[in-house]
Amino acid sequence: MEFRTMILGHFLVISLALNAGLLYRDYCNGKHKSQDVFGFKNDCKNSSLVTKRDTHVAKRAFIESKAQSSSPPKALGEVIDLDHGDPTMYEKYWQQMGDKTTVVIPGWKFISYFSDIKNLCWFLEPEFANAVLRLHKLVGNAVTEDHYIVVGTGSTQLFQAVLYAVSPPNDSEPISVVSAAPFYSSYPLITEFLKSGLYKWAGDAHKFKKDKPYIELVTSPNNPDGLSREAVVNQNQGILIHDLAYYWPQYTSISSSPADHDIMLFTVSKSTGHAGTRLGWALVKDQEIAKKMTEFIVLSTIGVSKESQLRAAKILQVLSDSHEHRGNFKEGEAFFDHSYNLMAKRWNQLKDAVKKSKLFSLPEFPHGKCAFSGRTFASQPAFAWLKCEGETEDCESFLRDHKIITRSGKHFGESPKYVRISVLPRDEVFDQFTDRLSRITSS
Amino acid sequence: MEFRTMILGHFLVISLALNAGLLYRDYCNGKHKSQDVFGFKNDCKNSSLVTKRDTHVAKRAFIESKAQSSSPPKALGEVIDLDHGDPTMYEKYWQQMGDKTTVVIPGWKFISYFSDIKNLCWFLEPEFANAVLRLHKLVGNAVTEDHYIVVGTGSTQLFQAVLYAVSPPNDSEPISVVSAAPFYSSYPLITEFLKSGLYKWAGDAHKFKKDKPYIELVTSPNNPDGLSREAVVNQNQGILIHDLAYYWPQYTSISSSPADHDIMLFTVSKSTGHAGTRLGWALVKDQEIAKKMTEFIVLSTIGVSKESQLRAAKILQVLSDSHEHRGNFKEGEAFFDHSYNLMAKRWNQLKDAVKKSKLFSLPEFPHGKCAFSGRTFASQPAFAWLKCEGETEDCESFLRDHKIITRSGKHFGESPKYVRISVLPRDEVFDQFTDRLSRITSS
Repeated sequence: MEFRTMILGHFLVISLALNAGLLYRDYCNGKHKSQDVFGFKNDCKNSSLVTKRDTHVAKRAFIESKAQSSSPPKALGEVIDLDHGDPTMYEKYWQQMGDKTTVVIPGWKFISYFSDIKNLCWFLEPEFANAVLRLHKLVGNAVTEDHYIVVGTGSTQLFQAVLYAVSPPNDSEPISVVSAAPFYSSYPLITEFLKSGLYKWAGDAHKFKKDKPYIELVTSPNNPDGLSREAVVNQNQGILIHDLAYYWPQYTSISSSPADHDIMLFTVSKSTGHAGTRLGWALVKDQEIAKKMTEFIVLSTIGVSKESQLRAAKILQVLSDSHEHRGNFKEGEAFFDHSYNLMAKRWNQLKDAVKKSKLFSLPEFPHGKCAFSGRTFASQPAFAWLKCEGETEDCESFLRDHKIITRSGKHFGESPKYVRISVLPRDEVFDQFTDRLSRITSS
Repeated sequence: MEFRTMILGHFLVISLALNAGLLYRDYCNGKHKSQDVFGFKNDCKNSSLVTKRDTHVAKRAFIESKAQSSSPPKALGEVIDLDHGDPTMYEKYWQQMGDKTTVVIPGWKFISYFSDIKNLCWFLEPEFANAVLRLHKLVGNAVTEDHYIVVGTGSTQLFQAVLYAVSPPNDSEPISVVSAAPFYSSYPLITEFLKSGLYKWAGDAHKFKKDKPYIELVTSPNNPDGLSREAVVNQNQGILIHDLAYYWPQYTSISSSPADHDIMLFTVSKSTGHAGTRLGWALVKDQEIAKKMTEFIVLSTIGVSKESQLRAAKILQVLSDSHEHRGNFKEGEAFFDHSYNLMAKRWNQLKDAVKKSKLFSLPEFPHGKCAFSGRTFASQPAFAWLKCEGETEDCESFLRDHKIITRSGKHFGESPKYVRISVLPRDEVFDQFTDRLSRITSS
């Protein structure tokens, strides 16, 4: 197999993978022509794609591949990829923690499918469940009383489990799934990819007018724009899914009343940064929904990796320890203090760059008092929702000309004047990015 | 929440979970009335279910829960559950291996989504890929040259990834999925549960006569009956999926020519016994299919737990070491020797019990020379496909009267005179089972 084909294939997949297939368009359709992600399969599958852009692709692969190791990628190349939200920013903190979060798993453990036969979600490891309860109690971001915990292979799987669990099984047509634009670019992809007869993507919740049952996704803080959200469809036939992946005190202020919704989704990838662990959890009020979600996860993957659960349990416990037993940690090592400070630093850096450049703008976030930390601050989200001001209509192409890879607003149901940019890469990459952005002064 | 409801809910889910929903029928519909698994949701969801059988359920939960620990369950209760294939038999072997397969994972590892940016399947850990290649080379059961490795959250996820990858995306009707009866009871459930417009379950491959494209599942050795299989639909429009989960030398003789099919599925749960790890792999010839499978796994779970992959890599390497570096292991500790001997012992025990009872029969397996071990032997599968001889029509109910829980043949597209019985429980449970079976001498 040709190496070039391989690398290209890789990027095709990653791009769809990490939510929108932006990268592939470079290689398929010319630099400035954009494609709907669903156009991917038809337009980008033939071998003629392996063409002129291979050098560029190979260079990116090299950069990314190097970025996996500890060497700073700064000197290695020019393309800065902030398309996806790979939370490598957190690596340093966990390195500092040394052996505290190291897990040791003997070979005879986790032979069985079962974790806790007495639990409705029988593949949920009790240690992980306890760590989740303790964390929510510490942070105060969500009510766990009167909720079942359902563990999933990331919140991506849990989102699908909810769709399965709440869709009427025997209706003549699939139930509509909506979310207010700008919405997470993966929602439509995931809802549509199996052409399910149970549910279908129905777009922007603001535009949903049908007098029929529907599912509304409420992501708060929102991906991509970081704003706090409430449901927007004003009807009584709706089932609400609250995706609270980013509702943690490093990103936004925690309200004095913990979230108490029927269905709430969380994930370790955005709380502790362990994206490779593929682990999320849902807090679910209704027993039947929790049962059907469990059923989905069984049919989909017969449960969830015990190794991931064991490791996440350890990491979450150390995270809680870092706040509740500060004496055992160095100054500034409490997890949410450390990550809050890092996000604050990055947002200041980003705002400075935007100010210097004069070509862009960022959302304004109201200040809120955080019931967890006591700090009053404006949100400092995991993604920046950057707007190209002036005449630039395609912000993503514009930034790509400056070798900054971002995700166009249109994948989020919004204008291409916007792009989403990850604020969670490694330090070196973020510094390089803000430096370059600040120097872009003419369109 | 009431404890009784909890326990019941648990069993409802587990039963569907582990392939057929046999358990739940006890509690929903009376002891002797059976239900199609799909009837589950309608018949078994109302609260009236929490009734007379709770004591029984609680007792079973207790037994199973104790069986999770190292204490033998013999004295604890009477129900022997061999419905699902939980491979706890393997626990002892891995305990004997001591620290050899212990993995240590520091907290800063596996932050990123990416494992190997250069690989088409970019979330595949190189260590796991290497361990898989080495294992197949050692055993000689499958050709890995000219195949891509796609890793999945168990072969259950990989099976769905293949369905997605090979189904025509834009056909007016879903493609038919068939498998020769008796077929694995999860195939219809998994194929149908999302009411996909891409594919649909079309039943027994022997009865498939449409002159249209189709997908045929070839499970060899077969679950439930342990027989070696080839495709049965005699048409040229078929796409074949070979599920080789049980094609390992402890269960059956390995042919002198390694399997070299287009799409082959494997899983650690049936090779090493690590079911809780939720890890499988596919060997796939066609690049486009491998790419689309990867795409499925990204949309489904954004990759596969790195912890599971790292641990499985270690376990597979030690397994290979136990054969290739025998000097470092004690006599009889080579994995496939040990597990072959254990399976041989169990099948002798089972055949003796069947002989003593006179009410049952087992399939006849031809002898074959194993190219891996050099031994000539008849298959000794992970499941026993037991037939009630004489007038007993419902073998599952009959055995349940003797407190042996099995899975009825009808869930596998076959007669209820058959049941499938796991041969992989812990020693104590298997001994108790064969002892009890041998004493059943009148219907």
